[in-house]
Amino acid sequence: MPKTKFTMQDDLGLGLQPAVQNQRTINRDGTSNSRRTGVPFFRTADIYNSLINMSWGMFNLLVFAAYVAINIFFASIYVIIGIQNLDGIKTGGSTFQHFMDAFFFSAQTISTVGYGHISPSGLPASSVAALESLIGLLSFALATGLLYGRFSRPSAKIRYSKNIIVAPYHDITALMFRLANFRSNQLVELEVQVMFTYNAIIDGKAIRQFMPLELERSNISLLTLSWTVVHPITEDSPLKTMNLEFLQHNEAEFIVMLKAFDDSFSQTVQSRTSYSDEEIIWGAKFLPAFSRDANGINVLALNKIDDLQRIELATQIKGL
Amino acid sequence: MPKTKFTMQDDLGLGLQPAVQNQRTINRDGTSNSRRTGVPFFRTADIYNSLINMSWGMFNLLVFAAYVAINIFFASIYVIIGIQNLDGIKTGGSTFQHFMDAFFFSAQTISTVGYGHISPSGLPASSVAALESLIGLLSFALATGLLYGRFSRPSAKIRYSKNIIVAPYHDITALMFRLANFRSNQLVELEVQVMFTYNAIIDGKAIRQFMPLELERSNISLLTLSWTVVHPITEDSPLKTMNLEFLQHNEAEFIVMLKAFDDSFSQTVQSRTSYSDEEIIWGAKFLPAFSRDANGINVLALNKIDDLQRIELATQIKGL
Amino acid sequence: MPKTKFTMQDDLGLGLQPAVQNQRTINRDGTSNSRRTGVPFFRTADIYNSLINMSWGMFNLLVFAAYVAINIFFASIYVIIGIQNLDGIKTGGSTFQHFMDAFFFSAQTISTVGYGHISPSGLPASSVAALESLIGLLSFALATGLLYGRFSRPSAKIRYSKNIIVAPYHDITALMFRLANFRSNQLVELEVQVMFTYNAIIDGKAIRQFMPLELERSNISLLTLSWTVVHPITEDSPLKTMNLEFLQHNEAEFIVMLKAFDDSFSQTVQSRTSYSDEEIIWGAKFLPAFSRDANGINVLALNKIDDLQRIELATQIKGL
Amino acid sequence: MPKTKFTMQDDLGLGLQPAVQNQRTINRDGTSNSRRTGVPFFRTADIYNSLINMSWGMFNLLVFAAYVAINIFFASIYVIIGIQNLDGIKTGGSTFQHFMDAFFFSAQTISTVGYGHISPSGLPASSVAALESLIGLLSFALATGLLYGRFSRPSAKIRYSKNIIVAPYHDITALMFRLANFRSNQLVELEVQVMFTYNAIIDGKAIRQFMPLELERSNISLLTLSWTVVHPITEDSPLKTMNLEFLQHNEAEFIVMLKAFDDSFSQTVQSRTSYSDEEIIWGAKFLPAFSRDANGINVLALNKIDDLQRIELATQIKGL
Repeated sequence: MPKTKFTMQDDLGLGLQPAVQNQRTINRDGTSNSRRTGVPFFRTADIYNSLINMSWGMFNLLVFAAYVAINIFFASIYVIIGIQNLDGIKTGGSTFQHFMDAFFFSAQTISTVGYGHISPSGLPASSVAALESLIGLLSFALATGLLYGRFSRPSAKIRYSKNIIVAPYHDITALMFRLANFRSNQLVELEVQVMFTYNAIIDGKAIRQFMPLELERSNISLLTLSWTVVHPITEDSPLKTMNLEFLQHNEAEFIVMLKAFDDSFSQTVQSRTSYSDEEIIWGAKFLPAFSRDANGINVLALNKIDDLQRIELATQIKGL
Repeated sequence: MPKTKFTMQDDLGLGLQPAVQNQRTINRDGTSNSRRTGVPFFRTADIYNSLINMSWGMFNLLVFAAYVAINIFFASIYVIIGIQNLDGIKTGGSTFQHFMDAFFFSAQTISTVGYGHISPSGLPASSVAALESLIGLLSFALATGLLYGRFSRPSAKIRYSKNIIVAPYHDITALMFRLANFRSNQLVELEVQVMFTYNAIIDGKAIRQFMPLELERSNISLLTLSWTVVHPITEDSPLKTMNLEFLQHNEAEFIVMLKAFDDSFSQTVQSRTSYSDEEIIWGAKFLPAFSRDANGINVLALNKIDDLQRIELATQIKGL
Repeated sequence: MPKTKFTMQDDLGLGLQPAVQNQRTINRDGTSNSRRTGVPFFRTADIYNSLINMSWGMFNLLVFAAYVAINIFFASIYVIIGIQNLDGIKTGGSTFQHFMDAFFFSAQTISTVGYGHISPSGLPASSVAALESLIGLLSFALATGLLYGRFSRPSAKIRYSKNIIVAPYHDITALMFRLANFRSNQLVELEVQVMFTYNAIIDGKAIRQFMPLELERSNISLLTLSWTVVHPITEDSPLKTMNLEFLQHNEAEFIVMLKAFDDSFSQTVQSRTSYSDEEIIWGAKFLPAFSRDANGINVLALNKIDDLQRIELATQIKGL
Repeated sequence: MPKTKFTMQDDLGLGLQPAVQNQRTINRDGTSNSRRTGVPFFRTADIYNSLINMSWGMFNLLVFAAYVAINIFFASIYVIIGIQNLDGIKTGGSTFQHFMDAFFFSAQTISTVGYGHISPSGLPASSVAALESLIGLLSFALATGLLYGRFSRPSAKIRYSKNIIVAPYHDITALMFRLANFRSNQLVELEVQVMFTYNAIIDGKAIRQFMPLELERSNISLLTLSWTVVHPITEDSPLKTMNLEFLQHNEAEFIVMLKAFDDSFSQTVQSRTSYSDEEIIWGAKFLPAFSRDANGINVLALNKIDDLQRIELATQIKGL
């Protein structure tokens, strides 16, 4: 009976696939480098996702545009019903003036300000105004939820070093990158996984390989300053027999997946990134990113997280 | 002393039970095929569940109906108190006009628009209006929470392939189905369980059997595209000695339970489905559901997830 | 060197303690039977807990009382400032009429209805009104949050059988109780623990013992109907050499702790209960609580979950 | 091939570092004793964190200041546009009176009270008022979210004993501290870790050492009263060969990390604290912090959690 074979390619849900060309699997910001088709255009949960994830500028613009649009819509209805049904509007003015008065009456209704110097009279205008104030309240209810959701959504914002480096490590070398918490909240119980992927020639065919890299430490209790994640290039490492040229030629990529508990939100958060072959520096070491201030307090300089110094790697590369 | 026997039938909380007839245990949408009686009619948490789970059309209709109903209720009270206590209402009109004026005054009060062209005077009308505005604010507070809850509720929307198939797999066969994320959010750390259930004849009595199926892989790190879940039909598989006729005759069902971490909501989500004997295709293989676009980006066609091609399964069936 | 001894008494954070008398450790509703002193009177998080956990009647009453109180407070200020600063109030009336007018003006301000037939004039009255509307908005903001919190709080509502029974089980006996989900939401990945506690005489001193009972199954995947939790009284069970009189004499208690994943809220929920010696029935079996309706759908009768039939237990008790 | 060495120093993400001087790693309140530089000034998630974590006094002051500031801003705009565009304002008054009238009109607009005794006329004033009411609604939407967030945020509030003590334990000694839940909510499934850190002289260089301490029990099911966490000083304990002078000289610190499930919020919460060498009492035992009241109910006195009695420790210290 055949032994069920563990197919590494499935690990990211990508299935068996031919070699990639100039494409990452995971983008630097942690999103996956793929698209989907055959999806219905309008889906509630995705609208929420979009509204939560868009920039604040975009979000504010959208809210403002919606506010203007809905007031234009209702102003038109009031004009159609007849502005004589809005007590307090000067009926002598131009059509533009009438429309603007109706527009401002609509704004005062939907925002529930209701000064009352203009007020609806008669069944049609009063009904529309009653409906508009309901819609207004529900819309602002939604906006309340969205604003809260935007502000309070737990998510890890991890600052990863720009490069993944091969550095001296005891008497061998190791693949290393550094990370720090970009936010001031506390991250605890961190766990990191690094997946190595490249185009391998198997039976004459280029097949994308995925394999996890063993780390010196894959979890820490508390991330106070920075954390240098280290894959020692031992005899067992798939990188043992590879050099920079090989990695670049075979479109190597290192996929980083991080999980942590966010202490402020009391929730588990995830972060992902990847290093492509162009971000590998073969022969370098990280410079310290933190120091002690006059009071002996540890100070982490987030902008120094990328700082490294190129160094010559000795015998190992030569022995390749 | 007798060894405590593991009774598979309890696994879904169903207890020992006779064989089913033309009934699923779990419906295709993941709900369980059961009802409950002896439950009090009115329970807060279940009302919330209903309001959160109903369609948007239904929800909006309900809100609108409640708004109209509550205004009719308060309008009646104002009419009973006497519309002369609402300053600004034309006292000369018909009863219908009076009621409608009271209705619109109520709407302006509960929505807190309060134009003021109609205003309460005297203790009774003022008290009712003060209470109504309180009720209005609390009702819209509830609506705010419900709207937010509806929009922001984390849940997995998984697109499962329509059929579960028996396909060639290395030099044996395997039971397979496919799934993809219907939403654009990221699912990570997925875990799937497949439970096989059918009517077995034990000691001459038909008893419903439940047993888990061993999977080639039961978890993946990241669901970027589709994931084909595979149960290899090895010597150890309970399916080894069964064929399609047997499964159909014994009302076989495959219950699928999936757990994943939703990266947008930072929460664990669950999804369930089941395949009944009618959804089994014995002898087929899935066609690729994704491709590369001009830029080399992976493109998943969600509407192709069901696509399969019927094929002849060789020796194994014959050997049965 | 002495071996570190596992002290069972600590398991519930109760420390070493003498025997109890007519007291449960855990109440039937899952709360612990203890009080705390030395706690500051006013603590934010506990206020929130109280407001979330109180009954709806109590909550509504509290909101109404706060609304009246705050309006009385502001009305007094307006009266002190002088009601001539509230335009539209009839200045000729009695002090009571003035106060009531100020009261309704306050209500219209704090609810932001603002009809405007009464409006503030002059710096002091206008300032107070401006502040009141701010306070009003923030108070209703809080009420919004509380209402949402009350409605949406995830929690398991488990219906436990009234009695824990000793029933025949294969050719021995077993301790059993039954549970079902009282709500219509789906509970998955359930896990249950049962802790047995009684007064033991150790070295002549009565010491409270706590020990976990081994269960036939301690977790199930999905709770569709009821679940009968079973502790087989094997040779290894601490109950092996006990009978009902012993349990009653030594104030036995069975503490039940249940953990599950609530599929509607996508959160883990917990439930606890306990059975005191008075709720043990020695010699009974549970009657089926579910049936099939005309369509073959499983129907669970929640009100039948307690139903049992007393039976004689054979040799085992006699052999004691 | 060299064996990958586990470097304890990384456990808190602190990296290799020289000995500390008069500095804790973790403060008593659980925050880490470090700062970060190179962080952009303005970041949404951190603003939210600050607004959630600041004191209630500060928060209310901030909201009030923002309310005044925004009204001054809009009042200025209305004055610039010309107060003749605000119908109902007495145009004869002083500039200060005009500004104050505009200020109160702004307050009535942004809070959506809108009495209407002052109302905007003309395109510019009406437009500004329409915009202001939109801004007002969104601001109060944010405030709603923040208030809810402040109130409902799950977090453990653990009362740790002031001192960590070395007490007699069976026939050896043990390091102990006590903790209790400061809140009235239920904590279940508690898990505690204790990390010991001090300056060690390694190869003539002072290096900060971090090592976990083995506990008698590292988790309990339910925290009803207090929990005494115990590290027995066995032959395997790093404390075996140390005394108080050594710990003080080498700036010892005990870092406590606690994880629990909060039953009210159905979420996992974390708590941290640390004991510096000055908080160690060598030779003491905790006095009982709980008692039974007249009804036999356990009563925990939270203010007695620190209570201890100094005692002489016998042979062990002498044998050092």
